[in-house]
Amino acid sequence: MDEKIVKVGLVGFGTVGCGVAKLILDEADSIAAKTGLRLELACVVDIDTDSARPLKLPTGILTNDFDKLLKNDAIQIGVELVGGTKAAKQIQLKMLKAGKDVVTANKALLAEHGNELYRAALENGRCIAFEASCAGGIPIVSGIRTGLAANNISAMYGIVNGTCNYILSNMTNKDEDFAEALTQAKQKGYAEADPTLDISGGDSAHKLTILASIAFGCEITLDDVFVEGIEEISKADIRYGGEMGYILKLLAIGQKSKDNRISLRVHPSFIAKDNRLANIDGSFNAVSIFGSAIGQVMYYGRGAGMMPAASAVVADIIDVALGNSATSFRHLRLKSRSKTAPMIEKIGDTVSRFYVRVMVKDQPGVFAQIGKILAENAISISGVLQHEGRGPDNTVPVVIATHPNKQSKLTAALDGLDKLDTVCSKPVCIRIVDIPEDKD
Amino acid sequence: MDEKIVKVGLVGFGTVGCGVAKLILDEADSIAAKTGLRLELACVVDIDTDSARPLKLPTGILTNDFDKLLKNDAIQIGVELVGGTKAAKQIQLKMLKAGKDVVTANKALLAEHGNELYRAALENGRCIAFEASCAGGIPIVSGIRTGLAANNISAMYGIVNGTCNYILSNMTNKDEDFAEALTQAKQKGYAEADPTLDISGGDSAHKLTILASIAFGCEITLDDVFVEGIEEISKADIRYGGEMGYILKLLAIGQKSKDNRISLRVHPSFIAKDNRLANIDGSFNAVSIFGSAIGQVMYYGRGAGMMPAASAVVADIIDVALGNSATSFRHLRLKSRSKTAPMIEKIGDTVSRFYVRVMVKDQPGVFAQIGKILAENAISISGVLQHEGRGPDNTVPVVIATHPNKQSKLTAALDGLDKLDTVCSKPVCIRIVDIPEDKD
Repeated sequence: MDEKIVKVGLVGFGTVGCGVAKLILDEADSIAAKTGLRLELACVVDIDTDSARPLKLPTGILTNDFDKLLKNDAIQIGVELVGGTKAAKQIQLKMLKAGKDVVTANKALLAEHGNELYRAALENGRCIAFEASCAGGIPIVSGIRTGLAANNISAMYGIVNGTCNYILSNMTNKDEDFAEALTQAKQKGYAEADPTLDISGGDSAHKLTILASIAFGCEITLDDVFVEGIEEISKADIRYGGEMGYILKLLAIGQKSKDNRISLRVHPSFIAKDNRLANIDGSFNAVSIFGSAIGQVMYYGRGAGMMPAASAVVADIIDVALGNSATSFRHLRLKSRSKTAPMIEKIGDTVSRFYVRVMVKDQPGVFAQIGKILAENAISISGVLQHEGRGPDNTVPVVIATHPNKQSKLTAALDGLDKLDTVCSKPVCIRIVDIPEDKD
Repeated sequence: MDEKIVKVGLVGFGTVGCGVAKLILDEADSIAAKTGLRLELACVVDIDTDSARPLKLPTGILTNDFDKLLKNDAIQIGVELVGGTKAAKQIQLKMLKAGKDVVTANKALLAEHGNELYRAALENGRCIAFEASCAGGIPIVSGIRTGLAANNISAMYGIVNGTCNYILSNMTNKDEDFAEALTQAKQKGYAEADPTLDISGGDSAHKLTILASIAFGCEITLDDVFVEGIEEISKADIRYGGEMGYILKLLAIGQKSKDNRISLRVHPSFIAKDNRLANIDGSFNAVSIFGSAIGQVMYYGRGAGMMPAASAVVADIIDVALGNSATSFRHLRLKSRSKTAPMIEKIGDTVSRFYVRVMVKDQPGVFAQIGKILAENAISISGVLQHEGRGPDNTVPVVIATHPNKQSKLTAALDGLDKLDTVCSKPVCIRIVDIPEDKD
C-alpha cells in the first residue's frame, strides 16, 4: 500500500512541542507501518529560535515566521502548542482560515473560547482535535466520544490535575502541610513556578468544561463550572477525614440528573478509601464515567508530561490525517446554547454530604449549640469525631459528617456556627462525595 | 443538519443481540442528536423465532431467513452475534460479499480465523469492527488503535475474563474452593453451564490474540499463545501466595522484547498486592498497557454482560457508519505472516519468577534435597514459607518463591523434585508476574 504523506506544522516549541517533534521525527517509520501515514515535520514556529532545547531539529525547520506555516499549502495540519488564550486563539483562527486542520493541547483556550473556535472550524470546513487537552496521554476524549457513543452518560468523576493530586497525595501519605507539598511539587517539576491555575482548580475546570461538553452533548462554558481550589486545605482535615474513612482528592465532577439538569463542580472532595479513585496517587490522572449501557468505566494514566501529552497530540494528528477527526468533529453536535441552553444546577442547589470542622471552646453546652444550629437548617449528622484533650487557646476540634443536604442549607448553618461565641475560628467545610462503585 | 439513516441487520438474537436491538430502538434519538446518524433496525435473524426474549421487537423485524438480510441492499451493516466459529464464519463471509460492513463480538472466530476474515473484508472493500470482542464495553480496541497510535507498545497485562476473575476473587476473599466458587459463578450468571472455554483460559487467549495483533501490529494466531487455565488452582496456594504478598489473577500477557520477540501467555499469575490490577474484583475487566510515549495506561470496566457488550457493538455500528472504522481497518496493516512472521518466544524460553509448593515428608534432610535440585538448575530462591505443624499423612507444605529464571530450567527442577522420595505429590507451580507500575 502506498504511504500518504502528511505535512505537519508546529507552533510552540516548548516542552510538549519538543515531545511532538521528537515523536514525529523518531517514530515516522513505525507510524507509517501501523497507519499508512508518513508524518513529516514541515516547520516549527516559535518566537524564540535561539534557546537550547532537549531536541535538535533538522536544519531549516525552526523559524520565528508564522507565515511560513500559514502560506505553505502543503501543510495540512497545524499544531498549536503555544498555550494561553490570546495569541493562541489568533493562531488557531488563522490556521483554520488558511485551510489547515488544527490539533491542540490548549485546554484554557478551548474552555474559554471553544464554542467560537468550533464554529470557525465548521465554517472553514476544518476540524479541531484536542485529545491532549484533557488528561494528557489518556485517550479520554475519543473514549467518551467514540467508545461510549451509545450511552447516556449520567456522571463523570475525574482526577484531572496532576499537580493538585501530587500535593494532596504527599499531604496524605507523608503528613506534609500544603506549603511543604507545594515546594516538593515545584522541585520535582510537577508544579509550575506560578502554580495558581492548578491549585485554584482553574485547570481542572477547563478540562471539565471540555469533557462535559462531549459527555453531555451540549455547549458548556467555563462560567457553568463551580470552582474551589486546594489552597486552604490543612493536613489536620486530611487526617480527621482519614479517621472517618475518607481520602481527600480534588475532583472534577459532572452529573446529569434524570430531569437533565447538569451539575458541574471542581472542589476538594472526601471520597471513600475503598473507592477506585482513592488510590490514584501522585501526578497520575483517572476518570470514572457512568454510562447507561456500560455501567462504570475508568481510565487511568499520566495526565501530563512531555511524552504523554505528545502521545495524545500525535494520536490526534493521525486521526485528523485519516479523516476520522473531521467526521467526529462535524457530528459533534453541540446544541447551540442560544437555542437550548443546558440547565446548569446552581451550586446552592446541589446536594452533598459535608465534612465540617469547628474549633470550639472546651466548655459545657457547646455540642448543644452546634446541634441546634444544624437542626434549624434541617441538617442531619451522620458522624462525629472529637478526640479527648485540648488544643492551643483551650480550643478543641469538633468534626462532623452530615447526611446529604442542599449546599444552601449547609452554607446557612456554617454562617450560624461562625457567629457562635464558642466557635473560635471560621468553620472548615469540605464536601463528601459518594462516588458510586459498580459492583457484581 | 440532516440525519443520515443507517440500516442495521442483526444475526443472533441471544443476550447480546437483545441488548443491541434494545439500544438501537431506545436510544435512536439520543444517538442521532450526538452523531447525526439515525440507526434503524431493519431485521433480526435467528433460527429460533419463537422463544420469549426480554425484548419485544416491532412486528416483522424478527425472521429466520438470513437472505432477508443479505439481499436487502439498504442494509449497510450486518452484526454477527451468533457466536461459535462455523456458522458465524460463513455468515460474516456472506455479509462481506453482499457488500455489508460487519460488526461482531465473536472473539473465538476472530482469534481462529481473523486473518482470513480481515483479508476477505479488504478484498470486498468492506471492514470488520470488533470492539465488543475484547473486554466487553471497555473501549480497548479503539483505545489501542487510535489513542496509542504514536506509541511503540512494549507490554500489556489484562484481566479479560470475568468468569475467572469472579471465581478467583471469591476463592481469595471468601475462602471458597474452586468448585464452590464455580457453582456461585454459575448461579449468579457469571459462568456458563459449560464453563470450559472460560476456566481453561481459552477465552482469554482469544482476546489476547486479537489485542496483541493490534498492539504489536502483526498477524498473531491462537497457536502463538501459551494457555494454562485456573481449574487446578487450590485455595491453599492462594492463601500461601497471599502470605507472601501476592494476589492470584488469570492474566493475559503480551510482551515485546527489545529485539522484537513477542511473548504471548495466558496463565494464573501471582501479582503484587499493591499492583493496580490486584484490586480488580469480581466479573470486572482491566487492561494495563505500557507505551513508549505514554508510559502506563489502564482501562477498567465491565467485561461482559448484555448492555456493556451491546454498548460496544453499537459504538462500532456508529464508527462504521461514520466511516471511521473503514479508514482504521484499511490502515490496520497487519504484517502478513508469510512475509515477516513475528518471532514468538517459546514458553520454555520465557523468563519469570515462580511460586513452587511441594508437599514433603516432615523429616531431616528434605530442605537440603530441594535446595540441591534447585541449585543444579541454577534456580535462586527469593523466599521460603513453611509453617510449623504438620498436615495429613505426616506431610508439610514447603512454599518457595524463586528469582527470575527460564521456564525450561524451572520445568527441569520440577521434574527433579517430583522424583524425590520425600516429595509426596506433584509439585505445584504458579508464575509470579512482576508487573511494572509507572510511578512519580
